[in-house]
Amino acid sequence: MNGAESLVNTLTAGGVAVCFANPGTSEMHVVAALDRLSKMECVLCLFEGVVTGAADGYARMAEKPACTLLHLGPGFANGLANLHNASRAQVPMVNIVGQHATYHLVHDTPLTSDIAAFARPYSKWLRSCEATTEIGRDAAEGLIAARTAPGQIATLIVPADIAWSEGGVTGHPGHAPKAALPSKEKIESVARMLRSGARTAILLSGDALYGSGLATAGRIATATNTKLLAPYPFARIERGAGAPIVDRVPYPRDQAIEQLKEFRQLILVGARAPVAYFAHPGKDAVATPADCKIATLADPGEDYRGALVALEAALGLHGIQYEAEKLDRPVAPTGSITLPGLAAAVASVLPENAIVADESMTSGRGIFAAARGCPPHDWLACTGGSIGIAMPLAVGAAVACPSRPVLCLTADGSGMYTLQALWTMARKGLRVTTVIFANRVYEVLRRELSSLGIGNPGPRASEMFVIGNPDLDWLSLAKGMGVPGSRANSLDEFVKALRHGFESEGPSLIEVAV
Amino acid sequence: MNGAESLVNTLTAGGVAVCFANPGTSEMHVVAALDRLSKMECVLCLFEGVVTGAADGYARMAEKPACTLLHLGPGFANGLANLHNASRAQVPMVNIVGQHATYHLVHDTPLTSDIAAFARPYSKWLRSCEATTEIGRDAAEGLIAARTAPGQIATLIVPADIAWSEGGVTGHPGHAPKAALPSKEKIESVARMLRSGARTAILLSGDALYGSGLATAGRIATATNTKLLAPYPFARIERGAGAPIVDRVPYPRDQAIEQLKEFRQLILVGARAPVAYFAHPGKDAVATPADCKIATLADPGEDYRGALVALEAALGLHGIQYEAEKLDRPVAPTGSITLPGLAAAVASVLPENAIVADESMTSGRGIFAAARGCPPHDWLACTGGSIGIAMPLAVGAAVACPSRPVLCLTADGSGMYTLQALWTMARKGLRVTTVIFANRVYEVLRRELSSLGIGNPGPRASEMFVIGNPDLDWLSLAKGMGVPGSRANSLDEFVKALRHGFESEGPSLIEVAV
Repeated sequence: MNGAESLVNTLTAGGVAVCFANPGTSEMHVVAALDRLSKMECVLCLFEGVVTGAADGYARMAEKPACTLLHLGPGFANGLANLHNASRAQVPMVNIVGQHATYHLVHDTPLTSDIAAFARPYSKWLRSCEATTEIGRDAAEGLIAARTAPGQIATLIVPADIAWSEGGVTGHPGHAPKAALPSKEKIESVARMLRSGARTAILLSGDALYGSGLATAGRIATATNTKLLAPYPFARIERGAGAPIVDRVPYPRDQAIEQLKEFRQLILVGARAPVAYFAHPGKDAVATPADCKIATLADPGEDYRGALVALEAALGLHGIQYEAEKLDRPVAPTGSITLPGLAAAVASVLPENAIVADESMTSGRGIFAAARGCPPHDWLACTGGSIGIAMPLAVGAAVACPSRPVLCLTADGSGMYTLQALWTMARKGLRVTTVIFANRVYEVLRRELSSLGIGNPGPRASEMFVIGNPDLDWLSLAKGMGVPGSRANSLDEFVKALRHGFESEGPSLIEVAV
Repeated sequence: MNGAESLVNTLTAGGVAVCFANPGTSEMHVVAALDRLSKMECVLCLFEGVVTGAADGYARMAEKPACTLLHLGPGFANGLANLHNASRAQVPMVNIVGQHATYHLVHDTPLTSDIAAFARPYSKWLRSCEATTEIGRDAAEGLIAARTAPGQIATLIVPADIAWSEGGVTGHPGHAPKAALPSKEKIESVARMLRSGARTAILLSGDALYGSGLATAGRIATATNTKLLAPYPFARIERGAGAPIVDRVPYPRDQAIEQLKEFRQLILVGARAPVAYFAHPGKDAVATPADCKIATLADPGEDYRGALVALEAALGLHGIQYEAEKLDRPVAPTGSITLPGLAAAVASVLPENAIVADESMTSGRGIFAAARGCPPHDWLACTGGSIGIAMPLAVGAAVACPSRPVLCLTADGSGMYTLQALWTMARKGLRVTTVIFANRVYEVLRRELSSLGIGNPGPRASEMFVIGNPDLDWLSLAKGMGVPGSRANSLDEFVKALRHGFESEGPSLIEVAV
């Protein structure tokens, strides 16, 4: 058994079932081992930002890590922007990055680079294999690190000679350490706050936003007349009819302040208190009122679900039914395209069990609220603010949940960063319906320029915001990668195209001029 | 004058004429300053890998730095792969990277990251501005660092509040330090080697491969019966009829060994002795014969042209005419597509004064040799081995030399990494003819797998090499970004499409199925 084989055997033994890959020469022995030994599903992506974004989407839905296979420093670097997002999503992920043979590094050949320097910022666990006999153990430890709450990025750098040499030993990935419960004092203290009668919100994160975590939070909120909130950059929410009611903190600072002004108490469950993404001259970034008491039920990495169960017990709650969203969706709108109309259109047809991968920053901002009364579905957001995540995220979610329809909401600006994801959707026949809101501008920048009080942009600034001239033709881009597309010029057409997309067995794309 | 204005004024004063940009919120004041104050040409790119690759291509042709404008850590990270190549090309470049307001960083908002950690590996000069009064000075120092021989990457991180505050002072970029001449002893020693009569090659790099540097090298080579060589990963060569004869060291290790075996002496001018890009089990990476004496005329960063002039003087050469390439191009080939036919086709029509941006790793490998007798032209190669450079490089070269036709040679695999460059070609109406060799496979990987002796790939490995299923349709991809395209199914059609491309005022794309 060579090193590469022990690596693959260890990952397989640890339950890693999918490898998102863009390998190169230095990873050939890992490719060969994947080929011969494993039943791992290997998903080729034509750009590394797709690889890491897909691994993120997979982990959010599968609740376990995929591995990635990346080529040296530059290949890894191409994946960094979506690793940034994955790091903020706190998902588990194991990156396998090839390196030159150890004895080759001295030559400083063209592709030599400091892989560890690039990997360090987002890798909670980082190791470069030093011996063939240890790759298996390294991979097992990396896998445990990835699975450690709340979910971490682990990166293993694998020199080619260590991979190709004989002497590999399969590692045994044990269980990740159990996430710790918060102290009794913390739980009691939060229970007292909830009993106080002061207007309170609970800001949820991680696995408190879906499954049993969200159900417990819902019961607590209903019993104590407390508001459940999600941060704007949440990783995943289970929502729609039957789910507890959760409001999202808005992206624009002024709207967040307006939403939060009623609360005298804010309880954090793995989350941070809301702050504006960016500073603006003369404005405070903090969105909570000055007299709002902020307390932590569970710190990031603690057991959110356990903490909520303990809180429920401390409150002495029994037999509570949480107040649930009611099934309440608009009828399909018709006529000219408007932003509220687009939101209603999505809400009118979103299928039960859908997964929405959403980075529509401006045109699609109303869709999340409009869809709250849809049949049960999951929503995935951009956690790190680095654009170019929606299509890769949709790839990963669709690989994790092949029977569920995936709706990908993006725009012409953000979509261009990682459009290569469309090809992987086509190759794998993924059930992803991608909507491109084509506003022909980096609209968020135009708004920011105005909100910074800089005034009207001149021609040189406009040249840097406006994506038109030439307009991107997304039907052609999709066709170029094997994804059928259509253009919606009215709400009727948009609804029809969405329906068609959700009914398709494979991917489709809809360009909407807004 | 605010900080952003002092930054822009300083760069303008220092002769920076072009900004390749993909800005975000944190760079809005720099955008506003570029808008109001400068005549700088701002070139929007829809992905940061295009930004950095274009700045590289610009610098290779303009022989001076462009600046880039990038958004925070993730935006900078997206540019790293082509910064890797630029770093190996040793070109001058000034990166301006926005950062959150200094007082905002404490909130660790979603887009916060360690920009300096990403910037450090490739930035020979790196600074984060600490005061508005100092941005001008910082920019001036960064610009001098970028211009320091042989050409360096300088990165300036600009916090938003430091940019928007009043109190900026325009800096005064002085001259970069003159590159040092090698010692007299070194020059004398090399002169003795050249007089010895042993079979000798001179491996040139940087500005010794074009202009007066290459002419001097040509005279020395002719007078001493020495062979001129370029490394496989060269930044720029001036070649074609009338230029000194320079052979390129081949990429495949065995071919490099074959080429170099006749030489008993190798003189390095800013270059490193040839070594295989990758290690292979049981094979030595060094390509020079064991008994070949390797000597350095000029180390990287020394004055290559001055060193060659001094060497010429030390050899007592006067009135030498270098042996030049003769105008000798094939007639346009016809018939079915073959690799030699493709090479002959390009060579038959390459126009005088063309610039070729080349990263065709497999299908196009014969073109460089075939074009040696074409009219004078420049050739730009991938210096760092990170693929996805050709189209961005072509953008930069075309912005630097708007009147010259640019030929971009890439493939379906490599082209996909940075295909967004096509949009910038369309927007700016750049005279770039892009050729996509569509072999539907990461061919270099298939070859490597075989050369590593791993044997025939099974289905899972093939899935990771083969780009087909679905085939990429580059005509549609180009159309989606506003670039007219055609498909060549024969050599006749390829020649015709090339001619048409070279005659066009704007960009075009040719897909060639190989």
